[in-house]
Amino acid sequence: MRPSSSPSDGLLGGLSGVPDVDAELTDRSLLRAMLDAEAALARAAAEYGVLPASAAEAIAAHCRAERYDPVSLGRAADATGNPVVPLVRELTAAVPEHARAWVHVGATSQDILDTALVLVTVRATEPLLRHLDIAADAAARLADTHRRTVLVARTLGQQAAPTTFGLKAAGWLVGLVEARARLVSARALLPAQLGGAVGTLAALGPAGLAVSDRYAERLGLATSPLPWHTRRQPLIDLAAALGGLLAATGKAAVDVGLLAQTEVGEVTEGGAGRGGSSALPQKRNPVDSVLVTAAARRGTGLVATLFATAVQEHERAAGAWHAEWEPLLDLLHVAGGAAARSARMLSGLQVRPERMRANLDETGGLVLAEAVAARLAPLLGRGAAHDLVSRAASRPPLRAALLADPEIRAHLSEQEIDEALDPHGWLGSADRFVERALAAHRGTRS
Amino acid sequence: MRPSSSPSDGLLGGLSGVPDVDAELTDRSLLRAMLDAEAALARAAAEYGVLPASAAEAIAAHCRAERYDPVSLGRAADATGNPVVPLVRELTAAVPEHARAWVHVGATSQDILDTALVLVTVRATEPLLRHLDIAADAAARLADTHRRTVLVARTLGQQAAPTTFGLKAAGWLVGLVEARARLVSARALLPAQLGGAVGTLAALGPAGLAVSDRYAERLGLATSPLPWHTRRQPLIDLAAALGGLLAATGKAAVDVGLLAQTEVGEVTEGGAGRGGSSALPQKRNPVDSVLVTAAARRGTGLVATLFATAVQEHERAAGAWHAEWEPLLDLLHVAGGAAARSARMLSGLQVRPERMRANLDETGGLVLAEAVAARLAPLLGRGAAHDLVSRAASRPPLRAALLADPEIRAHLSEQEIDEALDPHGWLGSADRFVERALAAHRGTRS
Amino acid sequence: MRPSSSPSDGLLGGLSGVPDVDAELTDRSLLRAMLDAEAALARAAAEYGVLPASAAEAIAAHCRAERYDPVSLGRAADATGNPVVPLVRELTAAVPEHARAWVHVGATSQDILDTALVLVTVRATEPLLRHLDIAADAAARLADTHRRTVLVARTLGQQAAPTTFGLKAAGWLVGLVEARARLVSARALLPAQLGGAVGTLAALGPAGLAVSDRYAERLGLATSPLPWHTRRQPLIDLAAALGGLLAATGKAAVDVGLLAQTEVGEVTEGGAGRGGSSALPQKRNPVDSVLVTAAARRGTGLVATLFATAVQEHERAAGAWHAEWEPLLDLLHVAGGAAARSARMLSGLQVRPERMRANLDETGGLVLAEAVAARLAPLLGRGAAHDLVSRAASRPPLRAALLADPEIRAHLSEQEIDEALDPHGWLGSADRFVERALAAHRGTRS
Amino acid sequence: MRPSSSPSDGLLGGLSGVPDVDAELTDRSLLRAMLDAEAALARAAAEYGVLPASAAEAIAAHCRAERYDPVSLGRAADATGNPVVPLVRELTAAVPEHARAWVHVGATSQDILDTALVLVTVRATEPLLRHLDIAADAAARLADTHRRTVLVARTLGQQAAPTTFGLKAAGWLVGLVEARARLVSARALLPAQLGGAVGTLAALGPAGLAVSDRYAERLGLATSPLPWHTRRQPLIDLAAALGGLLAATGKAAVDVGLLAQTEVGEVTEGGAGRGGSSALPQKRNPVDSVLVTAAARRGTGLVATLFATAVQEHERAAGAWHAEWEPLLDLLHVAGGAAARSARMLSGLQVRPERMRANLDETGGLVLAEAVAARLAPLLGRGAAHDLVSRAASRPPLRAALLADPEIRAHLSEQEIDEALDPHGWLGSADRFVERALAAHRGTRS
Repeated sequence: MRPSSSPSDGLLGGLSGVPDVDAELTDRSLLRAMLDAEAALARAAAEYGVLPASAAEAIAAHCRAERYDPVSLGRAADATGNPVVPLVRELTAAVPEHARAWVHVGATSQDILDTALVLVTVRATEPLLRHLDIAADAAARLADTHRRTVLVARTLGQQAAPTTFGLKAAGWLVGLVEARARLVSARALLPAQLGGAVGTLAALGPAGLAVSDRYAERLGLATSPLPWHTRRQPLIDLAAALGGLLAATGKAAVDVGLLAQTEVGEVTEGGAGRGGSSALPQKRNPVDSVLVTAAARRGTGLVATLFATAVQEHERAAGAWHAEWEPLLDLLHVAGGAAARSARMLSGLQVRPERMRANLDETGGLVLAEAVAARLAPLLGRGAAHDLVSRAASRPPLRAALLADPEIRAHLSEQEIDEALDPHGWLGSADRFVERALAAHRGTRS
Repeated sequence: MRPSSSPSDGLLGGLSGVPDVDAELTDRSLLRAMLDAEAALARAAAEYGVLPASAAEAIAAHCRAERYDPVSLGRAADATGNPVVPLVRELTAAVPEHARAWVHVGATSQDILDTALVLVTVRATEPLLRHLDIAADAAARLADTHRRTVLVARTLGQQAAPTTFGLKAAGWLVGLVEARARLVSARALLPAQLGGAVGTLAALGPAGLAVSDRYAERLGLATSPLPWHTRRQPLIDLAAALGGLLAATGKAAVDVGLLAQTEVGEVTEGGAGRGGSSALPQKRNPVDSVLVTAAARRGTGLVATLFATAVQEHERAAGAWHAEWEPLLDLLHVAGGAAARSARMLSGLQVRPERMRANLDETGGLVLAEAVAARLAPLLGRGAAHDLVSRAASRPPLRAALLADPEIRAHLSEQEIDEALDPHGWLGSADRFVERALAAHRGTRS
Repeated sequence: MRPSSSPSDGLLGGLSGVPDVDAELTDRSLLRAMLDAEAALARAAAEYGVLPASAAEAIAAHCRAERYDPVSLGRAADATGNPVVPLVRELTAAVPEHARAWVHVGATSQDILDTALVLVTVRATEPLLRHLDIAADAAARLADTHRRTVLVARTLGQQAAPTTFGLKAAGWLVGLVEARARLVSARALLPAQLGGAVGTLAALGPAGLAVSDRYAERLGLATSPLPWHTRRQPLIDLAAALGGLLAATGKAAVDVGLLAQTEVGEVTEGGAGRGGSSALPQKRNPVDSVLVTAAARRGTGLVATLFATAVQEHERAAGAWHAEWEPLLDLLHVAGGAAARSARMLSGLQVRPERMRANLDETGGLVLAEAVAARLAPLLGRGAAHDLVSRAASRPPLRAALLADPEIRAHLSEQEIDEALDPHGWLGSADRFVERALAAHRGTRS
Repeated sequence: MRPSSSPSDGLLGGLSGVPDVDAELTDRSLLRAMLDAEAALARAAAEYGVLPASAAEAIAAHCRAERYDPVSLGRAADATGNPVVPLVRELTAAVPEHARAWVHVGATSQDILDTALVLVTVRATEPLLRHLDIAADAAARLADTHRRTVLVARTLGQQAAPTTFGLKAAGWLVGLVEARARLVSARALLPAQLGGAVGTLAALGPAGLAVSDRYAERLGLATSPLPWHTRRQPLIDLAAALGGLLAATGKAAVDVGLLAQTEVGEVTEGGAGRGGSSALPQKRNPVDSVLVTAAARRGTGLVATLFATAVQEHERAAGAWHAEWEPLLDLLHVAGGAAARSARMLSGLQVRPERMRANLDETGGLVLAEAVAARLAPLLGRGAAHDLVSRAASRPPLRAALLADPEIRAHLSEQEIDEALDPHGWLGSADRFVERALAAHRGTRS
């Protein structure tokens, strides 16, 4: 559903979107993009002599969104199945007599609407990428700051072994960096659409190709080898990129939500006055985590719709094309909200190293059993080492059991046992992975 | 994305929705439903002595949607993750001192928002079902009128054998009748939500259950055995019903689109002045078919989202719940548009029996080869009959080949061959199926 | 992908399925069902004089799955796009001369394959429902046993207020009971398919309807008002029911996984020797919870496919029908595995009331702040009570802060404060909800 | 569901897959890939001194798939939730005593299974890309051969204006070329997985990173900046690429199916003896078109599942990971079948220029009304030209109406009218678009 006003200006839309991205997704913005396409078409065609330059300028002069009413255009669209037909009618009525015949020259409705949706996408991704950059910068700061902050890694929900919060944040960071790269690539490939009634540009005569390329150039968009009326790879690329973004932000959000559980308590979302409950005043909900998680859930259905509609028959499709419009805009809306909330969530994240350490210690060292066995292995063989430690691990707490075990004590001193049980000694390549992640992030800034 | 205004009032929303359904889906309507829930809660609780009746009435008196601004509520919702918290705050501020402490008594945000979404659904399905009934009535008329209108049935895109347009319309009809039944059932099962902070109704004390049942009754909704905060079968039922409706309307729309192909030309959408093209003045597009087809394509993604979000953890979910809101409303919006356009498409459908007959005859009787073989079978054995006719069918046109084949002519006269080649003689149970479909339809009206 | 052998007999298939359900989903089982349909057709048609009874019996005698090779049938199917054509060819070759012409009389491939898929579904749901019943019985036992076992309810991942483990299990139970009801209904509605080449049953002559009804009766299946070759509501109903089952089992599995987190530790999956890790010997993974969660995730895509393919054109569809076969079988496979693993997970669940109580107490009574306020409200007014308690709650632990607060002590004795802080006193209607859930469960057994 | 044998060897699997791709997707192939990963790990670790080279070789010597039984491994997997644990147990038991402790050194189950799935993907895409290349070559031949073969373009199902069959094939070609490029890119990015228990590679000590990079190199796979246990962008890229492939092949298939409709008859699928019907001997079904269309429909659900599961929590996920395995393999299976059938469909396509011309002429020139108006425009002004032609178009056939209209005849001779009505004169840039498409295709071969 598409509002005339910003989707953020609503009871629910403000929770899934963000104002600056949504400002590019309004009916007014879409209308502006449609008129930008009409103006670029007139001028590009005039450059190649299809119409007089004066006619092109007269048309362009009326391509101003504030002169048209989205609501009445939307109503009129019901008769033709798209809003371009009534817009062209109104634009034609508005321009001076001499230019009238040249409005929309050589184009079909889909040329204008596809191009407009691409323009809107390009414009909406500007603020979206800014939010994503803020999120990535925040993840990078967390990764760098917490290189030595140990916490317990969890696999299948169970405490497993030590890691660092820096590495966890580095994982989020790489996810954001990769998602950004996909989105930037997909956006750069988004082509202008110009094919005319059936994709041959017949009505533009021999100038067709040149006009088409110039039209794209004027709009700052890529060109396509041939019109893509029913070849929707550009939208698949875009949908996949936005889906990847929602997965990357969703992954961080789910982690934050789990780390913020009362029983875990390792992070808290920042932001005074946020997260209150209508029933329980003591509660502090991780609101951004929750809403970014929700965005990821919604993203799948929208991405799937754009894949499903990518099979389009003949020269222009009966329905599959029409089914793309709102889901594409909704996907941008939801991705914008997820990027912005991720930026806020990560920038304000309150990290509690002491709770991390306490949780790590909760099992009395069990999560370091592998480390003890590794220390015994060169002395005893890996098999025997593993067996000895397993035996001790069955009598927790581990440290006491190790100290009390004469076979182990024959090989390891108390100090050596304590060293083995120090999580800082069992972090493997964590720090070097953090460096790689930070380097990948710096690469996106150069 | 949720607009404050009607989703139909937009460049694109009017093409996917319909005004009367959309009027129930606006922010204003949702706000009204939230306040209806708050008022019903206050009054139901007062009936069981939880609060003074005067407080309940004072609260109910302020439960009027026009007193609140969806836009500012939406903005304030960002801090808490749902719009109920700020609404309760504003409502509390609005009521007289003596009632203030009783606003939202015993409830949690999800109680109010789930109930409001259910109310909105119930209200939106009223006009939706009216459209569906008009569509079904139109399909029934077509089925009845065209019991003897022969056309060629197509399987895997190929002409296969004769059928009647009445049977084709009867298939649409049964689809609509079944979809209607699913929607009516799912709607009747939609329960009010009241569980309090964690689903125990603790804050309502011993009156909890009674208040909960009375609350549902006041709102005209079903009760649930226990709160369904994280048990979303009611929404699955609803999503499946709406998905079924979109499949049933989509099936008819796809058929109309294919029958309306220029080369087929067996039906045309009615409606003077509809279906024009921005590039080609001679064209007449089957706009309603196209848009209903588009709706069906979008429906799948929305239905899938509601199935995916139905797994909700603990006592209230962190994200899966939030991901339901807009897709549920979008699904109602899209289904409303599909129902209304199907009603218009079927009511105005122009049927061309002469084109149907011409297409049926296009293969020179080949589509009746099976009928000729069936007539020969009692005389020659099925195998021999089949072989003889196949041989003739390889030398089209079939009638001439049959007449010229001495083995066939030894058993069948010219008149018998012509009888076998009459499609009216090879319709099997078509008419009785039509009767069954009409009976099923009448059953929904009694 | 469909194996000849049981899908459970594989590296991965055994983790998503369960042997007894999968035994009904093999190629051999599908072949058997196809031949059951052919035999029922021959006999039903013979009853109405379409063919001699002796021919029908001769055909039925050869409708034995072990006589045909799924692999070679599958290869031959490539030429025609479905496996019925080669099967009919082989069956025809096998029967005695006098019966040969009557094999597959009046039917089309889709009649046999749709009916076979329905039969396979009916057969596979037998063991599936048994697993579901075991799961529901186990949930009912947990609900009944733990009516008074308090634990903290969690909303948005945060500790919120007390509830009982009985109520939590009751929520799972109602989910399972509702899912069972949907599946039983959908299964009962699954119709046999018989329409002939184009849905008119022309080749069966005047006996068409009677043969069709008798065919369904012989197979123990429902009848449809008219053939459903391109009206797929029965499959939508089935897909939705299986999707609901996966949501209900997935909900319990996600809860178990979260409760089994090391830091929470309130439940453990039973089963000696299960849940081991390849890297970490001390770990015990909640394997059934994990795999049921995975099943729910997969279910959405499969359900969506069956909704997407439900729009089928003309009299038989070019692709949408073919796209249903494997996803339908996969959905049964995945649902079977989820039901069986849920049964095992719930039957063996080890519940730790002492950890539940410890977690509940972890916040020093904060989760009972609402209860204290409720006790003060009649004395001070709700607003003042709420403010006083909020003040105390900001100086945890709550009990000490309450005892130290003179305004509170003016109204509540130490004993009254301790009563208010007793979670057993703040369970609201939990027990009565458990009773309702148990009653609903008993209702499914009568 | 995963069979031990090739998925193609089944009643249904052979219709969705193709033997050579499916041969890489069997349990045996997956097992081989798992053992390749174990062998590469042992050898890479030995290179960096983690274990003796002799132990590594002893392990590698036992990494042969034929020594293990997928069925019994699959059964044993039920206890641990994945098949790596029992495989490591069997492998450990098989190797000589001295090597036993070094089996699976430093790795976790997910390292081996993710790497194996990546290897299987790389291997399966070899034959898949060959099929895709054959399809693209065939499309290129069609595009080149039919540059001057005119047919009518259809938009929203309606005849619109002339185009060439060469341009139509060029559109398919560009779709295939783009899909190929996405798949090649995604495949090249697929990284080996090695992170150890929690993604730190702790058990490999300081050699972790080096071993990890060498392991990838030995397997011919990319490296990842850090382990991607819960960062699934590589699988999103792959899923999107396969989804794009299914859209591109699906688009061609849908077009072929529509062009092959009896009433259109412009193309026929080649292949003697294919496309027969069980009920109607005269029918010839476009089987490959149908099955490729079906593949595209299924692809969406599988792609959506892989997007949905890409949000994975903590260091290794409880369910989302497990939900990926079969859908990923199914997606490769379905994409393989679609590529192979598209190759066959396009290579054997029988094109009927005379039917194309006949259909183009069916409307008596109406589809060239725009061309006539364009010829009058320089003489009369565009508006007046459009009006005159519209008037004539309302009295079809157009040629006669134009000749009979004195206002038109005042400007155009009969010869000029005939020139305007020649579709070859109204093809715009069609031929240059074909050249662009062919150039893009040649680019993929260099």
